[in-house]
Amino acid sequence: MRLWGGRTTKPTDPRVERYNASLSFDLRLAGEDVRGSQAWARALARAGVLPASEAEAIQRCLADIQAEVDQGTFHAAPSDEDIHTAVERLLTERLGPVAGKLHTGRSRNDQVATDFRLWIMAHAPRLAGCVLDLQEAFLRSALADLCTPMPGYTHLRQAQPVTWGHWALWHFWALGRDVGRLDQVRRSAAILPLGSGALAGTAFPVDRMALAGELGFDGVSPNSLDAVSDRDFAVEFLFAGALLGVHLSRLAEQLILYSTAEFGFVELDEAFTTGSSLMPHKRNPDPLELARGKAGRLIGHLTGLLTTLKGLPSAYDKDLQEDKEPVFDAYDTLAETLPVLTGLIGSLRLRPERMRSALSPETFAVDLADHLAARGVPFRQAHEFVGQAILKAESLGVGLDQMRPEDWQAVSPLFGEEMAGLFDVGRALDRRAAGGGTSAAALQAQAGEAQGWLASRGRPAQEPNGAGRG
Amino acid sequence: MRLWGGRTTKPTDPRVERYNASLSFDLRLAGEDVRGSQAWARALARAGVLPASEAEAIQRCLADIQAEVDQGTFHAAPSDEDIHTAVERLLTERLGPVAGKLHTGRSRNDQVATDFRLWIMAHAPRLAGCVLDLQEAFLRSALADLCTPMPGYTHLRQAQPVTWGHWALWHFWALGRDVGRLDQVRRSAAILPLGSGALAGTAFPVDRMALAGELGFDGVSPNSLDAVSDRDFAVEFLFAGALLGVHLSRLAEQLILYSTAEFGFVELDEAFTTGSSLMPHKRNPDPLELARGKAGRLIGHLTGLLTTLKGLPSAYDKDLQEDKEPVFDAYDTLAETLPVLTGLIGSLRLRPERMRSALSPETFAVDLADHLAARGVPFRQAHEFVGQAILKAESLGVGLDQMRPEDWQAVSPLFGEEMAGLFDVGRALDRRAAGGGTSAAALQAQAGEAQGWLASRGRPAQEPNGAGRG
Amino acid sequence: MRLWGGRTTKPTDPRVERYNASLSFDLRLAGEDVRGSQAWARALARAGVLPASEAEAIQRCLADIQAEVDQGTFHAAPSDEDIHTAVERLLTERLGPVAGKLHTGRSRNDQVATDFRLWIMAHAPRLAGCVLDLQEAFLRSALADLCTPMPGYTHLRQAQPVTWGHWALWHFWALGRDVGRLDQVRRSAAILPLGSGALAGTAFPVDRMALAGELGFDGVSPNSLDAVSDRDFAVEFLFAGALLGVHLSRLAEQLILYSTAEFGFVELDEAFTTGSSLMPHKRNPDPLELARGKAGRLIGHLTGLLTTLKGLPSAYDKDLQEDKEPVFDAYDTLAETLPVLTGLIGSLRLRPERMRSALSPETFAVDLADHLAARGVPFRQAHEFVGQAILKAESLGVGLDQMRPEDWQAVSPLFGEEMAGLFDVGRALDRRAAGGGTSAAALQAQAGEAQGWLASRGRPAQEPNGAGRG
Amino acid sequence: MRLWGGRTTKPTDPRVERYNASLSFDLRLAGEDVRGSQAWARALARAGVLPASEAEAIQRCLADIQAEVDQGTFHAAPSDEDIHTAVERLLTERLGPVAGKLHTGRSRNDQVATDFRLWIMAHAPRLAGCVLDLQEAFLRSALADLCTPMPGYTHLRQAQPVTWGHWALWHFWALGRDVGRLDQVRRSAAILPLGSGALAGTAFPVDRMALAGELGFDGVSPNSLDAVSDRDFAVEFLFAGALLGVHLSRLAEQLILYSTAEFGFVELDEAFTTGSSLMPHKRNPDPLELARGKAGRLIGHLTGLLTTLKGLPSAYDKDLQEDKEPVFDAYDTLAETLPVLTGLIGSLRLRPERMRSALSPETFAVDLADHLAARGVPFRQAHEFVGQAILKAESLGVGLDQMRPEDWQAVSPLFGEEMAGLFDVGRALDRRAAGGGTSAAALQAQAGEAQGWLASRGRPAQEPNGAGRG
Repeated sequence: MRLWGGRTTKPTDPRVERYNASLSFDLRLAGEDVRGSQAWARALARAGVLPASEAEAIQRCLADIQAEVDQGTFHAAPSDEDIHTAVERLLTERLGPVAGKLHTGRSRNDQVATDFRLWIMAHAPRLAGCVLDLQEAFLRSALADLCTPMPGYTHLRQAQPVTWGHWALWHFWALGRDVGRLDQVRRSAAILPLGSGALAGTAFPVDRMALAGELGFDGVSPNSLDAVSDRDFAVEFLFAGALLGVHLSRLAEQLILYSTAEFGFVELDEAFTTGSSLMPHKRNPDPLELARGKAGRLIGHLTGLLTTLKGLPSAYDKDLQEDKEPVFDAYDTLAETLPVLTGLIGSLRLRPERMRSALSPETFAVDLADHLAARGVPFRQAHEFVGQAILKAESLGVGLDQMRPEDWQAVSPLFGEEMAGLFDVGRALDRRAAGGGTSAAALQAQAGEAQGWLASRGRPAQEPNGAGRG
Repeated sequence: MRLWGGRTTKPTDPRVERYNASLSFDLRLAGEDVRGSQAWARALARAGVLPASEAEAIQRCLADIQAEVDQGTFHAAPSDEDIHTAVERLLTERLGPVAGKLHTGRSRNDQVATDFRLWIMAHAPRLAGCVLDLQEAFLRSALADLCTPMPGYTHLRQAQPVTWGHWALWHFWALGRDVGRLDQVRRSAAILPLGSGALAGTAFPVDRMALAGELGFDGVSPNSLDAVSDRDFAVEFLFAGALLGVHLSRLAEQLILYSTAEFGFVELDEAFTTGSSLMPHKRNPDPLELARGKAGRLIGHLTGLLTTLKGLPSAYDKDLQEDKEPVFDAYDTLAETLPVLTGLIGSLRLRPERMRSALSPETFAVDLADHLAARGVPFRQAHEFVGQAILKAESLGVGLDQMRPEDWQAVSPLFGEEMAGLFDVGRALDRRAAGGGTSAAALQAQAGEAQGWLASRGRPAQEPNGAGRG
Repeated sequence: MRLWGGRTTKPTDPRVERYNASLSFDLRLAGEDVRGSQAWARALARAGVLPASEAEAIQRCLADIQAEVDQGTFHAAPSDEDIHTAVERLLTERLGPVAGKLHTGRSRNDQVATDFRLWIMAHAPRLAGCVLDLQEAFLRSALADLCTPMPGYTHLRQAQPVTWGHWALWHFWALGRDVGRLDQVRRSAAILPLGSGALAGTAFPVDRMALAGELGFDGVSPNSLDAVSDRDFAVEFLFAGALLGVHLSRLAEQLILYSTAEFGFVELDEAFTTGSSLMPHKRNPDPLELARGKAGRLIGHLTGLLTTLKGLPSAYDKDLQEDKEPVFDAYDTLAETLPVLTGLIGSLRLRPERMRSALSPETFAVDLADHLAARGVPFRQAHEFVGQAILKAESLGVGLDQMRPEDWQAVSPLFGEEMAGLFDVGRALDRRAAGGGTSAAALQAQAGEAQGWLASRGRPAQEPNGAGRG
Repeated sequence: MRLWGGRTTKPTDPRVERYNASLSFDLRLAGEDVRGSQAWARALARAGVLPASEAEAIQRCLADIQAEVDQGTFHAAPSDEDIHTAVERLLTERLGPVAGKLHTGRSRNDQVATDFRLWIMAHAPRLAGCVLDLQEAFLRSALADLCTPMPGYTHLRQAQPVTWGHWALWHFWALGRDVGRLDQVRRSAAILPLGSGALAGTAFPVDRMALAGELGFDGVSPNSLDAVSDRDFAVEFLFAGALLGVHLSRLAEQLILYSTAEFGFVELDEAFTTGSSLMPHKRNPDPLELARGKAGRLIGHLTGLLTTLKGLPSAYDKDLQEDKEPVFDAYDTLAETLPVLTGLIGSLRLRPERMRSALSPETFAVDLADHLAARGVPFRQAHEFVGQAILKAESLGVGLDQMRPEDWQAVSPLFGEEMAGLFDVGRALDRRAAGGGTSAAALQAQAGEAQGWLASRGRPAQEPNGAGRG
């Protein structure tokens, strides 16, 4: 079926029919399309355009269709051009010509924008929920090992000691920003386009504010041309997805590294690894690699839709039909990735002894320099002295922490007996007591802040996960 | 000069030195770097780390450097690795070793993040200001021709009549969303990383909240690892820029079309066109083409930074140095494009007679169908009848508005004498009276809403521009 | 079924199983997988690793499976992790443990690279064939209207007269470069990785050159690490697709413009347009808009895979599994778009009278300047004079071709009586007789060159299409 | 100065002038512009358009300008719109009005395309030369440690033993494909557009084939519209650059990993590391990180230009001016990155003892399974048995290579006394003797093939680098 044709004198080329059809993917909007149509039927009735009895009949029939959608028994015909056509065809088959009144004052242009916005209004929060689950997993892991020391890295070189809790909370906060962006996407989507017709508005006195309220929108679009052409909300969804994907790629990369034989800081639960068809010994971190790799796909979708939108000449151009597939795929990708990572984090086993023993004495270099700085040596000079001490240790062939007092003195008389005592991981961590730092108190405060953040999102306080140090 | 070296035993390869250096572009952060250092000096003094007199001396010297930055007399040495090095070198040359105390408890990692955030906190609003200027130009143009009819397009085919004011307000609202995104970018940037050290926090009791307040930040980062690794604010800036670029490309494309000989709806002021080296007659819309083309560059920058961030393994990796050039270029691109477009819109001349005469009778097709629908004919059937009427007119070789009553009747007896009266652009526009539509009242309301929106941003009400219809 | 497990002590998490599985898309490689396995069985037999009878049995069973693939009766089980697993499972069900010998000396890493390369070796040429079809359509259209004048555009402003044939051949040549790139993609793919094992080569004396020959490869990979990690061929495929997509977007844009009411140079056949659910009069160029919009998707796929590959640490990382979906979608997108465009070009109707009447007198400006230049006036000065003549005509309110000799003289005494004669489109076209220009002879030569190009690709000479001027 | 203006009645808006100007970056084409103009002057003279004496004068003056370009004394005026204008202005200042004859029959559209192609024809090979240098460095390193064992990785987990030489040659071959793509870029660029005018060809009988020959082009463009609109060569350049960038990012990532404390396989020469402003002990692999991160920038440039080209409506649109900056920046990025990496590879120190001791016994798992397979056990079953043996060793708390014969037998009677002998790295490497594998002979052959490849590019055989094993 097609919703146009009075003017046409010959059939559409079958290749064009297939090429144009969007049913294979916009079928996914069936529920939203029916809800939007129900609201429109009510609006037409309130406006006196549709007699109450007809509106009633259309509503009931749409409710049946909605039930079929919900139960998975809704079936479109392959010949339906899109989901709007499919729904209108079913309605017509069941109600006769009166079904044809539903499209009064409405166009597929404002209809699809409404459906798509409804879908995003529902799914951005769902994705945010998945992110919150992952944040909870990080927080639980953080609480279990809040002060467990591990090397902190810059340039993938050991830099200074941090703790597992500190590391896990890093990703907690980064993901929190993703939740904020997904909230914002929902708000961007929640502006009702319905009532904008094809581009020029509607000639029937429908109450758009009431429509918006019924459908859960926050407001109505102020300009009908803008209403049918605006896809900012979809691009914002893809952007939020791409940046979330980048965050996941970073944490995945770090866990891939930390679970190598060479680093050995964590062990992935076997249920989250896979094997090799050739090499019997392999336990591969496939889920982490996929999470890392899929950042590419998500960035590609964002790039693709931005490019599609570039330079469009009209209020509605068919190019806009390209908006849905990347959004659906980005959603599916993330809705599948996030729970896998949540499960993986929740079942991760730490190897605290490996993390601690990996810490090289040089990671206390800042503590040594700070020590001099606290005695009034300009930091730049203190930095220099410590560098020379490291060279000295190298030339002596001993660890920095193994140098004798006289060796330290040879570098600078400012280095005293107390140097050996500075190579203490607990001391080093506790010294960094400013907000966001590694002292036990700062970490407790940070974890509390994280719990408060989650609570403000309706998530109750977390218990440490089972892998805790106990 | 370089800020490290105690441990090194041989010089850096000169190619590496050049490759690593960021001074050529981060010189642009000189002002922010100095401001951040002044605040840090005060914080160290308050924390008792720096004696008051030394802090005072450092502050004064930094104030001198700031003045040089402001006057354009600040000069870095080619050997300075980056802007932080340049400033510290100058300080050292002028103050001696005491300058070396400024870097106590601080790293270039938290310093550059602070500088860059300060820059974006200043420049996102500046860009928003340029967008507001362009919105004002659109609003002025809209007010001058609020109800001047023109063809509205979908699929680049005449669809229904709209008005110039409606068209101009479309772009007003689209740009308004860009302003909202730039606001959000500022908020994302306004979280202070200073006090996070290289990755693990600072061991000196600086008051980070006070630092944030002094420097104009809204809050402090909760986790030092996150603080030095987070570049979400920069990616968000590039995203806001890319989507703004896409909006500009769409309006540019439309104006390029409307100013062709073939459409002829508007005339660009000669000051906004350029000529050809070969063809003496050409007046080319170069600024519009550049505005359209530069969407590519802006999308490329966004893609590039997202890709750079993908899979980074540490709290700080040198890859992050790639964050600044795309942000600066995106800013420059838009800060140059927007005023040009504002000037172009402000000097645009409309050709209302061309816009009106271009309107084909077929653009009233919806009015004809609505007419039947209002009489109770299901819209789907009404649509069909109008389609047949169009075919009829084609077969008769007359315009749709030239058909005689008997011709209409031959299509359907529902078409009466009144058909001829429906081909009235004023009537058609006024019928679409729902919010966001084309009726005079709806347009007045929309324009008022736009004025209110601008006023809420501190922009006073606009007068119609000089090109008004009078 | 899974092809690993001896070491595992607990089941994979079901979410991970779904997340990891590639069967939903790599099922498409079934034919290639079976072919590759047949060749491998033969190679193992030749190497003495597999007894002839067992090799024979495996081959026969694979032939059955191939037949099922060809007939569409091949069914994988949902529990199969990927296509390799599915085929091996079927083989095992039918042959028993001997099937387990097939994987000797082989890994899924070299196997999937082989399958994927085989697929691209088959499908890049198929896509090239679709491009050649479209080139033929352009050539036929060019031959039918080789010298039919139309305005040529720069900056979307009328520049100089060209001809339809010239325009159509433009796109012929641009598409020819796409064919060249697809040829190159095939060559890049045709290097056999099989025999590289998981990463380190194979320990069994298989003859890789013979394998390559049997499977249609041009050579063998020189390094086993490179062999399993290299996806250049897939990225090249996506690049060829993206640039082809950009070419299609440009020609689509031009045809959208040329078929507007405002330009009116061509008419799309009704079978290649679609209508509106609201506006009964619309005939929309949807296929052209989709062809334009899909450039975004194709560019997105390229960006996505490049990004996925960035920074991969190993010879094979699971991230590489992300290579197939974009390639398949790019192929499908283009394999659907190209024939639609070929049909659309083949059924296009030209409106030569509109094209000719659209030509403004100013498009002869270069001819006027050239006229003076031929008399020894420096071109820069001639350009200036013609510009002034245009201003003169504007001030007189007449067309440039309507100026009287005395008006011309007033601009410059160098303009003589002969000016009126220069406004002749045939003359103007014929003057541009250098290669690649618009003279009848140059166009004939160009068309001949195009025919020769096609002939060298095995395509016979084209007749003008039915829409010819007759 | 501007090259148009006769028709204009008012000055260009100064913002537009700045916005339009391309001189800041196309100044870089000065040499190419002058060469192209010299050839054009000769062509005009040969065609009888320019008297010999005037052509001579123009040529001489252009030669002077060329000399200034070569000596760096060429100065454009800020008011010059672009490089073509700058050169023509200088010519006019020195020669008077006769200079104005040079632009006869030529447009900036075909001129800039010619200049840009000349630039790429010169610079793609230069970049290829830098890649060849890096390949040589890899080959030297490979020759020095051809058979030095190291762990090979898949999924960043130890997979099987490989050798340093094998690893280094991997990157040799991957880079070789980049050289091939750069060759192809040169060929794509080497088609002369000059003689195509603004879009419609030239009216003067210039010999385009002779022009092409003089300027080093391989052929002439067949269609003037295509000639001025085609930017495929620039996109291909950016693609070759992006994929090269991805290759560099992969090898950089691997070297960053291998040079960590945790892996410890290689040591970067200190001249190729940098330090930290805070942490005195740091030696950071900044050049490798930048090489990895810059892949983002290169991918962004490719995306950007593809997007800019999408949907362009004319033969020449001003959007095309956006083609140069990304190409120049991609060139500079790679021309700076490649020599740094070449130096870094050349000065790398291997730690063979670390590489060997890192090899876990499990990396011989395939050898164990192959051992059973060679005895007729189906590989799938052999794989299973080895997996169980690994579990057994784990449960016994011993290394796999430490299991006693009776432990092996407990897993399967097929495991005999000989198992202990299989844990031999030399044996394992030598078993993989098929082409591209790890046996000494296969590696020698591969190295020879690499030397031959380089020789065919005019590069003589390499000596092992200084870091060789002696």
